[in-house]
Amino acid sequence: KINGDRLWDSLMEMAKIGPGIAGGNNRQTLTDEDGEGRALFQKWCEAAGMTMGLDTMGNMFATRAGEDPEALPVYVGSHLDTQPTGGKYDGVLGVLGGLELIRTMNDLGIKTKHPIVVTNWTNEEGTRFAPAMLASGVFAGKHTQDWAYDREDAEGKKFGDELKRIGWVGDEEVGARKMHAMFELHIEQGPILEAEGKDIGVVTHGQGLNWLEVTIVGKESHTGSTPMPMRINAGRGLALITELVHEIAMKHQPNAVGAIGHIDVYPNSRNIIPGKVVCTVDFRSHLQEVIDAMIAEFDDRAPKLCTDIGVEMSWEMVGTFDPPAFDETCVKAVRNAAERLGYSHMDIVSGAGHDACWINEIYPTAMIMCPCVDGLSHNEAEDISKEWATAGTDVLMHAVLETAEI
Amino acid sequence: KINGDRLWDSLMEMAKIGPGIAGGNNRQTLTDEDGEGRALFQKWCEAAGMTMGLDTMGNMFATRAGEDPEALPVYVGSHLDTQPTGGKYDGVLGVLGGLELIRTMNDLGIKTKHPIVVTNWTNEEGTRFAPAMLASGVFAGKHTQDWAYDREDAEGKKFGDELKRIGWVGDEEVGARKMHAMFELHIEQGPILEAEGKDIGVVTHGQGLNWLEVTIVGKESHTGSTPMPMRINAGRGLALITELVHEIAMKHQPNAVGAIGHIDVYPNSRNIIPGKVVCTVDFRSHLQEVIDAMIAEFDDRAPKLCTDIGVEMSWEMVGTFDPPAFDETCVKAVRNAAERLGYSHMDIVSGAGHDACWINEIYPTAMIMCPCVDGLSHNEAEDISKEWATAGTDVLMHAVLETAEI
Ligand SMILES: NC(=O)NCCC(=O)O
Ligand SMILES: NC(=O)NCCC(=O)O
Repeated sequence: KINGDRLWDSLMEMAKIGPGIAGGNNRQTLTDEDGEGRALFQKWCEAAGMTMGLDTMGNMFATRAGEDPEALPVYVGSHLDTQPTGGKYDGVLGVLGGLELIRTMNDLGIKTKHPIVVTNWTNEEGTRFAPAMLASGVFAGKHTQDWAYDREDAEGKKFGDELKRIGWVGDEEVGARKMHAMFELHIEQGPILEAEGKDIGVVTHGQGLNWLEVTIVGKESHTGSTPMPMRINAGRGLALITELVHEIAMKHQPNAVGAIGHIDVYPNSRNIIPGKVVCTVDFRSHLQEVIDAMIAEFDDRAPKLCTDIGVEMSWEMVGTFDPPAFDETCVKAVRNAAERLGYSHMDIVSGAGHDACWINEIYPTAMIMCPCVDGLSHNEAEDISKEWATAGTDVLMHAVLETAEI
Repeated sequence: KINGDRLWDSLMEMAKIGPGIAGGNNRQTLTDEDGEGRALFQKWCEAAGMTMGLDTMGNMFATRAGEDPEALPVYVGSHLDTQPTGGKYDGVLGVLGGLELIRTMNDLGIKTKHPIVVTNWTNEEGTRFAPAMLASGVFAGKHTQDWAYDREDAEGKKFGDELKRIGWVGDEEVGARKMHAMFELHIEQGPILEAEGKDIGVVTHGQGLNWLEVTIVGKESHTGSTPMPMRINAGRGLALITELVHEIAMKHQPNAVGAIGHIDVYPNSRNIIPGKVVCTVDFRSHLQEVIDAMIAEFDDRAPKLCTDIGVEMSWEMVGTFDPPAFDETCVKAVRNAAERLGYSHMDIVSGAGHDACWINEIYPTAMIMCPCVDGLSHNEAEDISKEWATAGTDVLMHAVLETAEI
């Protein structure tokens, strides 16, 4: 069994970097705080006897050698970046849980045939640079590195420039590594495990996702002296689309979700009628046909709702992945580990996207989830118990040991 | 008659300071660009033989002496600050039109009994620091200076600190000056004069205004893993309120207008359901009872619309003025001047708020309007012709000469 207190101390130590304003974290990707978090993780890995590799997307790979020089490594890990108002566990638990299992194996003198690599994937959250899971996506060949380097944040800064600025461009070619398997431990970010009273979620599938960046164009003019019939108010287009997205998702629930999270209004002045709104719609389902149906309905109805009020609307896809089905052998290794350790468990679908979803397209992959309080995530108040973190990391270690062969 | 070419050259020269991105201006109040615009105006005033006074709100008063040392001055002027995406004429025409009439009087050796003062009022636009017409409001005793100094911009910078930073805090007590009368020349910012083919609007009344800052509180959570029934989406509250404001204003149109111009979404991340939205509703009418009816209906329906979807809503008034009726003698002076000069004219209600609305509460005041293309304002594409600017300034000069007594 792993050392739950040591794991918890490391989680709390990492949370000191990029503190939020309400007890959580703001350690967005490629900020100075992200750089600080990376340095601390590297220091811990080296202290645990691992050697750090770094690729050209800034992905970090800490290796504990195996006994068979020919055997491909078993990977574990997740991400250290957070939302602007994120929690202390989303992503971090999977990285530091990986570190903890290495520390435990060191303590117990456990050796494995396959090497074990603990990974920190760059820009999982996708809030500063869309899309999410950007660097694991390049690793898996879903995007080119050039395209990823060109992604811009809201201030127009490019991913590639910011990665260089914080000093974490490695020399390893991205995607060159081969994997025997990969396991990601993550908090559920939803309410199901807590409601069912289970310690462990054995993740069999995930939701697919479509992110639509919608641009709504009206005409800037004076809120006081422009007569009502002359107004072309892009804010009204936003209003109609917000409700449309909700209506479409409700029609398919519980097999789908949908909302607008990001909204920029131009010029955003109290006495100017909005001339432009740019916002992102997030539609998800674990059924590809449901995602397709939602997009089709949106594309059919949204532009018409807008033209009916004189506003122009267009959209482009800025993030997409298909619903993943995880590798049966790896999933079984997770379920076996939970059984063996006596933790209560259930099969579950991941509501969020994860780096494991991309890696699953190229190597055998599975995920382990632990509950979080009230299903709350992407909120500074995100919370888990030390017991849940410990159980999840125990199962992670045992799944890895079975796969890496003691 | 005034020198229309010289007026136009000065307008174009001022427009070089704080250029926008689409041919207009971004010279928001108390920015470095505002400071630059002030310095240029002061240089021009001094070259025209005027002496500059500056009060503790940064209001600028350039005086041309009169012949009777006892006579109170006649004031003209408007504002040099602009919207973030504003035009070259909104406010600026009234200030530089005032300067031009002094230059013309100098050329022609015209003397007046009353002194004439050309004024630049600080923070008319109200987009950086709410409310609009802030410094003329303090001058007129509507707000205290301490309260004005405490107004904050979106970055939390205070009005008082920013005024000091750009170096335009004067030593004159604000509101200490007495006025014989005041005239403000302004572009219409609406479509009526152009549609009616009139050169001059004789402004008899103005719209009153209420600005409501609305706060909508939901619960930040993950857009992917939060089931639809668990969502408390502040963005949906915004959607319902946007449409409610439009519906209420349409009910009273053409005697009212209403819209939301300013919207901040928190935390504004693609994969976080909005936990909070702060926005400003702008309701106006030239009839106080219509404003009251709109506010009452909003207050009655908006909170309920929000609680019905689980969201909390509250609002506070951040700007308000009653519909002004301008001074009959001053209005007559404007109408007489237009008649005398042979310009086509009509009586008109101002759709926007102006510094003249506040000054009208304490001294005899009137306004002159000139057309603008397509009624467009608060847009970089705002446009007027040199002929319109000339006609308006001619009428301004003749109304001033009648009032200041040659
Ligand atoms: N796990 C997580 O929150 N990932 C961010 C990508 C997503 O929005 O699902
Ligand atoms: N004239 C003008 O645009 N003033 C700003 C105050 C208002 O919104 O009416």
